[in-house]
Amino acid sequence: MLPYTTLLQIDKASPQPVYQQIAGQIVQHIRSGVLKPGALLPGTRELASQLSLHRKTIVAAYNELLSQGWLEVTPKKGFNITRDLPELTARSLRPDQSAAYDNRMAVPFYGQKAAMTTKANEPPIRLVVDDGHPDPRLTPLPLLLMREYASRIKHAQRPTIIPGSLTAGTQRLRTTLAGYLQRSRGIQAGAEHLIVTHGAQMSIYLAAKTLLRPGDYAIIGDPIYPVAAQVLENTGARIIRIPVDDHGMDITAIEKACKRYPVKLLYLIPHHHHPTTVTLSPERRLRLLDLCTTYNFAILEDDYDYDYHYNILPHLPLASYRHQGRVIYIGSFSKSLASSVRLGFMVAPADFITQAAQYRRLIDLRNDNILEDALATLITNGDIHRYLKKANKTYSERLNNLDQLLRTHLADRIIYHRPTGGMAAWVRFKPGYDLRQIAQRAAKKGLYISNGKDYNNAGIPFNGLRIGFASLLPEEMNAAIGILSQSI
Amino acid sequence: MLPYTTLLQIDKASPQPVYQQIAGQIVQHIRSGVLKPGALLPGTRELASQLSLHRKTIVAAYNELLSQGWLEVTPKKGFNITRDLPELTARSLRPDQSAAYDNRMAVPFYGQKAAMTTKANEPPIRLVVDDGHPDPRLTPLPLLLMREYASRIKHAQRPTIIPGSLTAGTQRLRTTLAGYLQRSRGIQAGAEHLIVTHGAQMSIYLAAKTLLRPGDYAIIGDPIYPVAAQVLENTGARIIRIPVDDHGMDITAIEKACKRYPVKLLYLIPHHHHPTTVTLSPERRLRLLDLCTTYNFAILEDDYDYDYHYNILPHLPLASYRHQGRVIYIGSFSKSLASSVRLGFMVAPADFITQAAQYRRLIDLRNDNILEDALATLITNGDIHRYLKKANKTYSERLNNLDQLLRTHLADRIIYHRPTGGMAAWVRFKPGYDLRQIAQRAAKKGLYISNGKDYNNAGIPFNGLRIGFASLLPEEMNAAIGILSQSI
Repeated sequence: MLPYTTLLQIDKASPQPVYQQIAGQIVQHIRSGVLKPGALLPGTRELASQLSLHRKTIVAAYNELLSQGWLEVTPKKGFNITRDLPELTARSLRPDQSAAYDNRMAVPFYGQKAAMTTKANEPPIRLVVDDGHPDPRLTPLPLLLMREYASRIKHAQRPTIIPGSLTAGTQRLRTTLAGYLQRSRGIQAGAEHLIVTHGAQMSIYLAAKTLLRPGDYAIIGDPIYPVAAQVLENTGARIIRIPVDDHGMDITAIEKACKRYPVKLLYLIPHHHHPTTVTLSPERRLRLLDLCTTYNFAILEDDYDYDYHYNILPHLPLASYRHQGRVIYIGSFSKSLASSVRLGFMVAPADFITQAAQYRRLIDLRNDNILEDALATLITNGDIHRYLKKANKTYSERLNNLDQLLRTHLADRIIYHRPTGGMAAWVRFKPGYDLRQIAQRAAKKGLYISNGKDYNNAGIPFNGLRIGFASLLPEEMNAAIGILSQSI
Repeated sequence: MLPYTTLLQIDKASPQPVYQQIAGQIVQHIRSGVLKPGALLPGTRELASQLSLHRKTIVAAYNELLSQGWLEVTPKKGFNITRDLPELTARSLRPDQSAAYDNRMAVPFYGQKAAMTTKANEPPIRLVVDDGHPDPRLTPLPLLLMREYASRIKHAQRPTIIPGSLTAGTQRLRTTLAGYLQRSRGIQAGAEHLIVTHGAQMSIYLAAKTLLRPGDYAIIGDPIYPVAAQVLENTGARIIRIPVDDHGMDITAIEKACKRYPVKLLYLIPHHHHPTTVTLSPERRLRLLDLCTTYNFAILEDDYDYDYHYNILPHLPLASYRHQGRVIYIGSFSKSLASSVRLGFMVAPADFITQAAQYRRLIDLRNDNILEDALATLITNGDIHRYLKKANKTYSERLNNLDQLLRTHLADRIIYHRPTGGMAAWVRFKPGYDLRQIAQRAAKKGLYISNGKDYNNAGIPFNGLRIGFASLLPEEMNAAIGILSQSI
């Protein structure tokens, strides 16, 4: 007789019912070779007594193993392990060792096989300078959103959602959003021109996958938001990089590229270009709209930062101009509500939205529809509008503070232009000040700053980083810039 | 003088500040040709008086237009529209007409250009038979989740999240999930083997994109969950379809395929195969594990339905067996919490998870980290375990009810085997009963059922549908089957 009190460890605090624990552990012992094919198990009364359990529990465990084919009944003897389980004798390793996941996938896969990052003995980070995020301590919106969400759950009705009908978002949010975009930025679109996504990144991906195939031509700025560039590269498209100066992308260079290549898509950040924070001038906007008509390419307008402007009016999006079905407009609520809230959208002609929604099903069936409807309520009752007014005031003061700090402590070591909006400043260190080393030294003092490696031109770093000023209180930013200047 | 009181419509209830409304509308009128380049605007005092606004508001509007380049100052005269705006004279269409989004994208894109669906005069749907979803009225979990979420927001700390560190999920949820998978189903994995996604669909997509390239070979069951098949096809892989019988996929046929082709991936639904609800037998599981070692392919184990079994023990996942880094395990909380809650996960060797996370950034930066940590609390404090026990009891009774209804009302017209778990039954109509017509007639009586077109073999429909029994109360299911039998 095997030592069943040792072999079968019952954990009454476990979420798994006891009879399932017993059955599962017997299977493990069969697989590991402890229980051999044909071996007789103790009777239910006997095992129950050994384990101090009710006999019914053992009967339930054995019945499950019978129904699953692991046990057989031998008349007048009792239960034994099934005899013809294939190749069980070869499985004699201990289950906890042999079944564990490891670091290496046995089957080859694609992409660089990145080493696991080891973070041993890193000093703790106490302060993080991000690349432009709202302050979660400032906004009441996620709390209002969750209250509205909870109230909607409490009054849950009989579900009448037709399967597959939520891929592009709820009808309520799409309709509300269409009105909001009309009122706040002059975009003339209906619910059928809108897809709600899990954030601006998903919108970029869907637009790129719907428009581009390997060998197609796409234009991006240089420098650029690196993850957007990676998406376009991932489609297999050929990427043309156009310099970004103080007024945005160089339109003359774009026109030259269009004359030479059949450009399909241009990716654009019209407000507060990432990383350099410049805004595309109205004159260039008009020229770009002309170019897209002449050369028939689509403009992917990533206006993630429309909501934040300090003492200056935002430009109306290209999507509000006469674009004849060539501008795809992308926005996000992650910047206006909180980075944690993952809700973005895309506006485009209806046939394109239909196709993008079909692709969206492949990567992500849908959003949380209750969250979507809760957001619609916050838009309708003006909560978002009220908060944005307050946030613009606070972030404007925080930008003033950062501006003052940079001028006082770093003026002769950096190149920097005060941004007109958004949540980050673009700061480049002058030659001789190596940002990678500065970031390393800052980390040792408990401050995280970007080392700027994502921002480079053909591998040569711009030696620059975005300093997000929105998410830190003035005293926190004072401390951060203090550590930063000590780290140079 | 133009009729400015007509041209400029102020909406004080709008979220947009009044000065921005004025500036925005002036821009619209410039673009539409109503205001020509060089035209003089009324003085600030005069316009303020006409519109009954404070003069400061007009000054703010004009200043914004100046800073944006739309206006110039002519000394001693006032403000006029900038003269050298390019090609403005050509823009004489009314803005509300010319800028509106339409049905057609001007730039060609990929995929079928689906016509917009028109749903005119459809009778309202009062009752929906889904393909297997939980009942949102039954579960308290989303409410508990949102309460935990709200409590976490209220105590928001200074953000110390390093940008990019949340792509695979919070450390807290990944660690909690690793323990939960160990306790509930014997999977031996750590946080580094886990990525949290926005649902099982995203996990499938990430695994497919990381493993497959055009021309690679992948195996799926036939019939199969159609959206998973579409994902594999989308990678450009060559798809081998293996028949699914009453014990799951035909392993002998899989072995034949492996001898002939260099198979890279096998997609598997081990419990309650979609659509047919059969479960892969233990004997076949062992044979499949041997095959994947012999022929070195990965198994993508989509165990979305592990949590629901009635009077029967679930099989341990293949991922809990000795798989030597070849099983990628996928699960979801959308089935255990509510369909609206979008949280799924994937378990795999660490190097594969690292690569999948890199791809995930392209399609979706990350989940809501507060939601992730709230879920971790529900796992840790046992809420999910307690609810699943209750839900299994309720859904088991609802299955009994459906089983009785089908036997009483439809027995001679359908082929159907009672499932052992999950949330749906697979019902095929016998020849002579056309499901498409039945679904159309049911819709006219206010009942939505699937017309089965997604389930077919080489275009020939199986004439079958999944009847989700979990989400409807017994009296609702009685009504649904009543309408269904009247529609035949």
